[in-house]
Amino acid sequence: MNSTKEQLMTAIAPEVEKIELAMRSDLAAASSDCDPLLAEVLNYGIFNGGKRLRPLLVLLAARLAATSDTADEKSQRELLLLAIAFEYLHGATLYHDDVIDQAATRRGKASVVQEFGEIAAILGGDFLHSRSMFLIGSIGGSMALEIFCHATNAMVDGEFLQLRNARNYNLNEADYFSAVQGKTALLIAATCEIGALVGGATAAEQKCLAGYGLGLGTAFQIVDDLLDYQGDEASTGKAVGNDFQEGKMTLPVILALNKAGSVDRERLLFLLKDEDLRKTGFAEASALIEKYDGFAASRKMAESIVAEAVSGLKIFAGEKAVQTVSVLRVLAEYVLLRNK
Amino acid sequence: MNSTKEQLMTAIAPEVEKIELAMRSDLAAASSDCDPLLAEVLNYGIFNGGKRLRPLLVLLAARLAATSDTADEKSQRELLLLAIAFEYLHGATLYHDDVIDQAATRRGKASVVQEFGEIAAILGGDFLHSRSMFLIGSIGGSMALEIFCHATNAMVDGEFLQLRNARNYNLNEADYFSAVQGKTALLIAATCEIGALVGGATAAEQKCLAGYGLGLGTAFQIVDDLLDYQGDEASTGKAVGNDFQEGKMTLPVILALNKAGSVDRERLLFLLKDEDLRKTGFAEASALIEKYDGFAASRKMAESIVAEAVSGLKIFAGEKAVQTVSVLRVLAEYVLLRNK
Repeated sequence: MNSTKEQLMTAIAPEVEKIELAMRSDLAAASSDCDPLLAEVLNYGIFNGGKRLRPLLVLLAARLAATSDTADEKSQRELLLLAIAFEYLHGATLYHDDVIDQAATRRGKASVVQEFGEIAAILGGDFLHSRSMFLIGSIGGSMALEIFCHATNAMVDGEFLQLRNARNYNLNEADYFSAVQGKTALLIAATCEIGALVGGATAAEQKCLAGYGLGLGTAFQIVDDLLDYQGDEASTGKAVGNDFQEGKMTLPVILALNKAGSVDRERLLFLLKDEDLRKTGFAEASALIEKYDGFAASRKMAESIVAEAVSGLKIFAGEKAVQTVSVLRVLAEYVLLRNK
Repeated sequence: MNSTKEQLMTAIAPEVEKIELAMRSDLAAASSDCDPLLAEVLNYGIFNGGKRLRPLLVLLAARLAATSDTADEKSQRELLLLAIAFEYLHGATLYHDDVIDQAATRRGKASVVQEFGEIAAILGGDFLHSRSMFLIGSIGGSMALEIFCHATNAMVDGEFLQLRNARNYNLNEADYFSAVQGKTALLIAATCEIGALVGGATAAEQKCLAGYGLGLGTAFQIVDDLLDYQGDEASTGKAVGNDFQEGKMTLPVILALNKAGSVDRERLLFLLKDEDLRKTGFAEASALIEKYDGFAASRKMAESIVAEAVSGLKIFAGEKAVQTVSVLRVLAEYVLLRNK
């Protein structure tokens, strides 16, 4: 695992640094006339050790789609601005999610809402949302804006679906994947699709990269669900068992319920439904999920989704593409292996 | 007053109906694949008897700027979509404001957050925000998007400024106008500016219409402040005294403090600062503001701002412009006279 991670980090380090610098300079410009507290709220929430997965995918997809290596400085700068727009949007959703979930921490430190209060978290999120759409629309044009908005609307819709799912203990795999698509995967697909579009990809290449992103995003969310049961708090920076305590029907639970005999099935459902047992029954629920291979089967699904996503990249066969395809492959493998 | 209102209502009725229909059809399309609860949250918050001032200004500014009467159907439809984008954004800010202020009612009925809860209000607002920027960017292009984002960012910044102002009892008129500009007026200026832009105005016409909008928006906010002291609850649908109870330094207070002798000045400040007196001292504070002409002086300022805004429209001198200029003039007068 460490070697995959190291290999990946070395390959992406120059891009990640460019992304960080671009965000520093763009946020400074965007908030130059603003209230100092607003600037502080933006910087606090954005520079928090995020993995920068979304902007990175924009850059990689654009590079893969590019027909020549000699992009001029202006188009490079514009591409970076498009890339960071996705990180802003991601930031905006985290600001608002933490208000909704009343989350006190985020990546091991106080969340924005905890540190600055609800007004700052809601409005700071709105500012980032607005900035992200401005960058997408003014640089990527109306087609990019359409892809982007399709994804953001799906995110909101996915949250509403999740609200409804929260009281639905008959949730099946299809419901789960449909919620995951809205919540996470469509936006990750959009990073690749917009990167491809701006990079000058053909329609087929664009579709293929969007498919890669969709798979990557889905696998990412499955691993998130697994970490919520099996993660190491010191690495993830957040407590395990949150999903269980909220009675959430995540993939490991759904797959275990599919296989469990009726007694164990009823017991697992009871643990998830009962508000008191949700506080004390985490170990018992984990054991039941384990007994019916819920974790292993979820991981297997994530692996096969990643394998399919990577295999789709084979249409990029030229010599020029080898290195970037390899980074995308390693990135997808890392999503499976990540421990935070 | 009634005759001004009736005259205005007759003049704008066809446009207002077009706006309502456009929103019905666009929201139905935008939420057609969405969770039914999301669609309900959107319809509930948008169709609530709003005055549709913002989209109306887009249409009027575009009409004033147009060089011919024969706009085709497509451009008429696009103009309407641009217009409703402003109502969506306005809706989004109301959704979020009511979460922030924990407001139970809005226009005499339960607020979105009260009716559907915090998640629905935050995410429903995000959906509308996203839809509004999509419409602006994809129809108005990057210049419209830039004007729009400048205004939305100013709104967020204005709220932060207001947060800081909340503890500043030395607030002067300049601080007040700068907060009002961000909070309300710049967005209203943007409706006129974008309408003018899309209608094909010259740079001078665009600037003039933006100035009209800025004046109208500023006067609108001053009247809002007055209504918070002097409004009739049955008409406004909200209780008077909210601003006082929050200790807000609105224009009537600032102008009264400027004129008051030191004893009355200290007393008024004390009423605003003391949390207990804020609950009981409304009548006393109102009397002090009245004593030093705070209400009358505020109204006078609003009147002179409106007069200047209207006088700026004189560059539209052609015969074709007469009717639209007259509607804009009456609209501005109505802002002064409105009782809700």
